[in-house]
Amino acid sequence: MIDALPLEESAPAPGRNETLARAYADPDRAYELDRRHVFHSWSAQAQLDPMVVTRAEGSHVWDRHGNKLLDFTSQLVFTNLGHQHPRIVEAIRQQAADLCTVAPAYVNGARSEAARLIAKHTPGHLDRVLFTNGGADANEHAIRMARLHTGKHKVLSTYRSYHGGTQLAVNVTGDPRRWASDNGSTGTVHFFGPFLYRSAFHATTEAEECERALEHLEQVIALEGASTIAAIMLESIPGTAGIMLPPAGYLEGVRELCDRNGILLIADEVMAGFGRAGRWFAIEHAAGVVPDLLTFAKGVNSGYVPLGGVAISDEVYRTFADKAYPGGLTYSGHPLACAAVVATIETMEDEGIVERAARLGEDIFGPGLRDLAQRHEGIGEVRGTGAFWAIELVRDRATREPLAPYGQSSPEMGAILAACTRRGLLPFANFNRIHVVPPLTISDDEARTGLAILGDALTEASPAGGPSA
Amino acid sequence: MIDALPLEESAPAPGRNETLARAYADPDRAYELDRRHVFHSWSAQAQLDPMVVTRAEGSHVWDRHGNKLLDFTSQLVFTNLGHQHPRIVEAIRQQAADLCTVAPAYVNGARSEAARLIAKHTPGHLDRVLFTNGGADANEHAIRMARLHTGKHKVLSTYRSYHGGTQLAVNVTGDPRRWASDNGSTGTVHFFGPFLYRSAFHATTEAEECERALEHLEQVIALEGASTIAAIMLESIPGTAGIMLPPAGYLEGVRELCDRNGILLIADEVMAGFGRAGRWFAIEHAAGVVPDLLTFAKGVNSGYVPLGGVAISDEVYRTFADKAYPGGLTYSGHPLACAAVVATIETMEDEGIVERAARLGEDIFGPGLRDLAQRHEGIGEVRGTGAFWAIELVRDRATREPLAPYGQSSPEMGAILAACTRRGLLPFANFNRIHVVPPLTISDDEARTGLAILGDALTEASPAGGPSA
Ligand SMILES: Cc1ncc(COP(=O)(O)O)c(C=O)c1O
Ligand SMILES: Cc1ncc(COP(=O)(O)O)c(C=O)c1O
Repeated sequence: MIDALPLEESAPAPGRNETLARAYADPDRAYELDRRHVFHSWSAQAQLDPMVVTRAEGSHVWDRHGNKLLDFTSQLVFTNLGHQHPRIVEAIRQQAADLCTVAPAYVNGARSEAARLIAKHTPGHLDRVLFTNGGADANEHAIRMARLHTGKHKVLSTYRSYHGGTQLAVNVTGDPRRWASDNGSTGTVHFFGPFLYRSAFHATTEAEECERALEHLEQVIALEGASTIAAIMLESIPGTAGIMLPPAGYLEGVRELCDRNGILLIADEVMAGFGRAGRWFAIEHAAGVVPDLLTFAKGVNSGYVPLGGVAISDEVYRTFADKAYPGGLTYSGHPLACAAVVATIETMEDEGIVERAARLGEDIFGPGLRDLAQRHEGIGEVRGTGAFWAIELVRDRATREPLAPYGQSSPEMGAILAACTRRGLLPFANFNRIHVVPPLTISDDEARTGLAILGDALTEASPAGGPSA
Repeated sequence: MIDALPLEESAPAPGRNETLARAYADPDRAYELDRRHVFHSWSAQAQLDPMVVTRAEGSHVWDRHGNKLLDFTSQLVFTNLGHQHPRIVEAIRQQAADLCTVAPAYVNGARSEAARLIAKHTPGHLDRVLFTNGGADANEHAIRMARLHTGKHKVLSTYRSYHGGTQLAVNVTGDPRRWASDNGSTGTVHFFGPFLYRSAFHATTEAEECERALEHLEQVIALEGASTIAAIMLESIPGTAGIMLPPAGYLEGVRELCDRNGILLIADEVMAGFGRAGRWFAIEHAAGVVPDLLTFAKGVNSGYVPLGGVAISDEVYRTFADKAYPGGLTYSGHPLACAAVVATIETMEDEGIVERAARLGEDIFGPGLRDLAQRHEGIGEVRGTGAFWAIELVRDRATREPLAPYGQSSPEMGAILAACTRRGLLPFANFNRIHVVPPLTISDDEARTGLAILGDALTEASPAGGPSA
């Protein structure tokens, strides 16, 4: 239906934008302009000295000095298919030529197909999709739906979690990024999730941690009042906060508590979803657990164009079938972003990316990181699955004292990270942890190379010393 | 610096994505999938029968029945350079081929140049830019900055305003979209802005309205307590709420009240900015008034890729120079969106788009709509500037009773809108108003054609009857 334009209507094809061409040809200028005009997220602006990325391809990025770095971060854990995947790039280019944008009120083919493909892979067939621009607004809208569906207001979520940067999303967040915006007024309540390595429940086994964490949640629900609670929002596997895999039975127990108390379960799969955890969605590790609402972003289109969303159960959908859902946004279901979704999900299907992520975890990252832990006293614990791993760096294995305090970094962490970068590895760090979260398309060789660099960096810079005896 | 890839590294160029090709070739399928899977903003889902847009070009869109419609909406008032502008399309395609995305922590040339170009055009040189995904999160971050900068919490904004769909943004909003999410807990307070046609102050002239509106705001500040108020957030010209141009002196007065009371002024230019009002930013109509924070989205890149942001004064910037700004988002300064910004702003500069918008208002829309009002009893008032116009439809010019109640539509409004569409015009409506908000690139002929269709639709369907005597 996209006819070629009649010749007399079409303008001559414009050439390459010169300003953009120069911006890439002269990365020093890009740097200067950044320091002069770009206000960066989560940062003290005058203290930044950001790296210029001049090129990226597959699992690598290049800086302005020509250094090639292996990307063990997937940027902010979103380029799940790596940089510049040709199928996604081509879909974006074609969509741009056809139809960059239409308002959300209309039907757009790319949006329709993206919604179909997302719904197809959700656990339990969450068949309707509200598209947003990213993870934070996906969580905000999921909470609004839960509130209106249940007629209740409070939202429970865990300490050690991240749900986004807008006011409500950062208020459900359970990490220090919440504090500056936390006026305690948005109906959010935090509880402790299971985390055996730093158990809040004095547990000594996963089974005990699970049982006690569920008992704790049951008490919080009783004391806050089930009649006041609209939803429990959980990262199916908490990501930035530490990749703490929930023990067997935990998510099943949460689902059961929700059902018993008329509370909706919102699974935040923004980071853990779309193959990252070796499943389409991380919640599938708890077989049969179906959330009422599932939020996503990042991996859904490898972040090539901003997009997030909420997948919605039939029951919640029915609340808004004949009553307007009071929420929305200008760019809901943006065609360019949706075209990238279609290409991403089809590539994942065709190339068995989810299975590949699972295998990377089983064959390379699991064994490789456990091997590192055997050789480095400074590694307190290794946790993860798929291409979603964390190592806890500690001053002392016995006391488990973290190498950086909660909410901060430390010179020792800084030294290890600098050693990684110097050796050609781009690391992802949070407080005292390093996460191994490369593209799911990383080759086995690249994955092993990255682990070797990480080991060398620890040998060089870990205060717990080099290889243990 | 983006070298061509060595041949052995590059995969064979993929073909056109078949799913996307089919989605456009078969708009009935796109429609079916939409009804099955896409959850729409602000709507009762089961009651929708959305139009399929199969193609768009310049000031026109096409539906699946082959109807060509003149777009007097700019979608949601964002395609300021029309559909498929070749320079923006080309910049996106080139950026997609070069580098779709990097994380916000790095420097990216497209982002640097976009920030430079935005800062260059802001009133009073708001020199730093925090990029967001859209208008709502831009407003949320502007409020957070104001709160942390002033150490105060409350935000004042007007009734009859729209600031976005996330929790805090919808709570500052002063329109019925707020009600379902309004638990009165996010520190937002509403006051009356100037609106002579439906004066809250019993004023009879613009000067009186201005004086009384400022007096009212002064009282609200005194009674809420200046020591509790972080910011006043205002659309420089309220958009969706009715395009009420502030009377001469009003914004100057608000600026003065802010200064006197240690309150920041946040100008929401999401809809009114980037040429829409015949200036780069609508606030320039009040010469010399410089906001502390200015939020934008939409026109900044004609919405071709989702992007919004906050332009920040030096004074607010300094608060976050050595103390971290506690906010951010994964896609802040997305390269693809920033490439579209660069191409958009340069096109606006090169082609004199802002001046063109001003002239459209002076030569065509102003005279044309006033002429319509002379011929149609049903038009109560015509307001606007640039390519940013509203007509108030009323049952009776004397009583000014609106043709649809506040917050709702009516069968009569529906009939007029249907008559527009049937005659080939895509209209923008809100309650009892029709807004004339086409692309700034609309040709004079197209603009006149659109006004003629609007007149015919009124003649056919307005209950106040056809042309007045
Ligand atoms: C689990 C989780 N939820 C939500 C978000 C917020 O997503 P965004 O930054 O796109 O708003 C993130 C971002 O890292 C996340 O990891
Ligand atoms: C004045 C104004 N502010 C903010 C917004 C919210 O922008 P977005 O829908 O991109 O979140 C809008 C959207 O229409 C707007 O008109």
